[in-house]
Amino acid sequence: MIRILFADKPENRPRYEGPLTRAIAQTGIVAEIVQPGETDPASVDYIVYSPQGPVQDFTPFTRAKAVLNLWAGVERVVGNETLTQPLCRMVDLGLERGMVEYVTGHVLRYHLGLDATLAAQDGVWRHDTGVPPLARDRSVVMLGLGALGRTCAEALAGLGFKVTGWSRTPKDISGIDCLSGPDGLHAALARAEILVSILPDTPGTTNLLNSETLALLPEGARIINPGRGTLIDDDALLAALDAGRVGHATLDVFRVEPLPPEHPYWAHPKVTVTPHIAAESRAETASEVVAENIRRGEAGEPFLYLVDRSRGY
Amino acid sequence: MIRILFADKPENRPRYEGPLTRAIAQTGIVAEIVQPGETDPASVDYIVYSPQGPVQDFTPFTRAKAVLNLWAGVERVVGNETLTQPLCRMVDLGLERGMVEYVTGHVLRYHLGLDATLAAQDGVWRHDTGVPPLARDRSVVMLGLGALGRTCAEALAGLGFKVTGWSRTPKDISGIDCLSGPDGLHAALARAEILVSILPDTPGTTNLLNSETLALLPEGARIINPGRGTLIDDDALLAALDAGRVGHATLDVFRVEPLPPEHPYWAHPKVTVTPHIAAESRAETASEVVAENIRRGEAGEPFLYLVDRSRGY
Repeated sequence: MIRILFADKPENRPRYEGPLTRAIAQTGIVAEIVQPGETDPASVDYIVYSPQGPVQDFTPFTRAKAVLNLWAGVERVVGNETLTQPLCRMVDLGLERGMVEYVTGHVLRYHLGLDATLAAQDGVWRHDTGVPPLARDRSVVMLGLGALGRTCAEALAGLGFKVTGWSRTPKDISGIDCLSGPDGLHAALARAEILVSILPDTPGTTNLLNSETLALLPEGARIINPGRGTLIDDDALLAALDAGRVGHATLDVFRVEPLPPEHPYWAHPKVTVTPHIAAESRAETASEVVAENIRRGEAGEPFLYLVDRSRGY
Repeated sequence: MIRILFADKPENRPRYEGPLTRAIAQTGIVAEIVQPGETDPASVDYIVYSPQGPVQDFTPFTRAKAVLNLWAGVERVVGNETLTQPLCRMVDLGLERGMVEYVTGHVLRYHLGLDATLAAQDGVWRHDTGVPPLARDRSVVMLGLGALGRTCAEALAGLGFKVTGWSRTPKDISGIDCLSGPDGLHAALARAEILVSILPDTPGTTNLLNSETLALLPEGARIINPGRGTLIDDDALLAALDAGRVGHATLDVFRVEPLPPEHPYWAHPKVTVTPHIAAESRAETASEVVAENIRRGEAGEPFLYLVDRSRGY
């Protein structure tokens, strides 16, 4: 019998209880799932964790073999100095599919000009100007080519888009023009009719989109950011939107969430705000990843999605 | 130097000029593109043709090696008795890709609730109700499984949707639940959270969506029709929208086009009108087909998509 601490915020407990119990049972491991405060920390074998949960100090969990994050991002835990246990991030198929659907949906929205379509219900038949170019003539750039970024890039290429991917280190993905490093970033931005970022929050990505890099985009470029809010220098983006350099932005993540009602993004005619919904874990699929890592831990196999703390992700 | 007559309506000349020039240059053939009236008909080597253009009498084009139609359909030229030159129809990859992009874009728009997203830019952070279901839990039905319908159905399945296809005669497509015949139609409609039709205009499809068949849809179903306007009994659809049985409709084709400004579809809050743009030939891709046929003509190779006039297509 192993003991699993469910250390997400209490409101999420009902959503995960059934899926997590079922997923662990399917591995054949006999386990007890406990809540913070219900058990001696020194008796816990695995911590199912979210930064919104009650656990801040990992020191008392002397036996814990791993901290299994329910979030894809680990920036709110990776620097915790009490964390000595292995940390795994979440690569949730449900989260991944949700992200692919958000990204393809908003890229197609920009590609087809759906906002203009919805605004043009005025009795004027605009056939001659209404036919959009084909995806093969539309250059989409994906910043971030980890598991999620790669899957999104491949889905966009599958729809026919000309896809360029950019990552810190070189990658090679069939059907995607992969660029890397600082020079690669400049080249990628220069061709981004539609720019999508799912870069993680690291010191290297903070304000990566600033007045200098935004100036590299083609006039009227569209930006989709379901990655991390720290990517964007908000004042610089607002200035670029006002100047027409950036045509429109769809933002799902922000430095402060919920985005305050008075933030200029809400009322800006060239900004669409979505409430951090693109990369949401789904309890069924996330529980399967947690259970698989517990199975690996018990079998002495390497964990999936183990975080390299020196890189920060 | 060969001479190519561009015999579409004059308004389409700017759209084709660049693409046609580029596509022909890529074949290595040196050509001059001329307009009707600019040249002696007896000096023309190829006629790029549309039934909307000025050429009705092919007799003076004594040297022309082929008439290259810009339209998929040849019904308005195949019976022309002055036509003695080989006639080729258009099979434009761009038309197919445009249809796939329109269909996937509007399905994702409905799936993700993008209209509501655009309307909810009011400072209220709706995270808890904002996460859409996954495509794997969304049932999409495609009416019509010819070449175009099949490609659209496969693209939707590739994005993860649960796709049911319906056709008059039985089909078998990997990853698509294929139904057929009248009973199959009823079963398909009953599961259509999002219904897409690209059925052709035939006696069997006229008013296929009427008050009886619309009543089979799940409450609040969404309809996308980029096929033919005759599919829908317009009064029945308007009644179903007003009753809430149908949640929303996106219509690209109509019995009368342009759709008259006073038609109730334009002002209806649950209808999006698009101006017959889904299945449009693209100048770039159509020009590539034209150029390839000119290359073949000059090389003495058989033409692509040559019309058999005894069969009429």
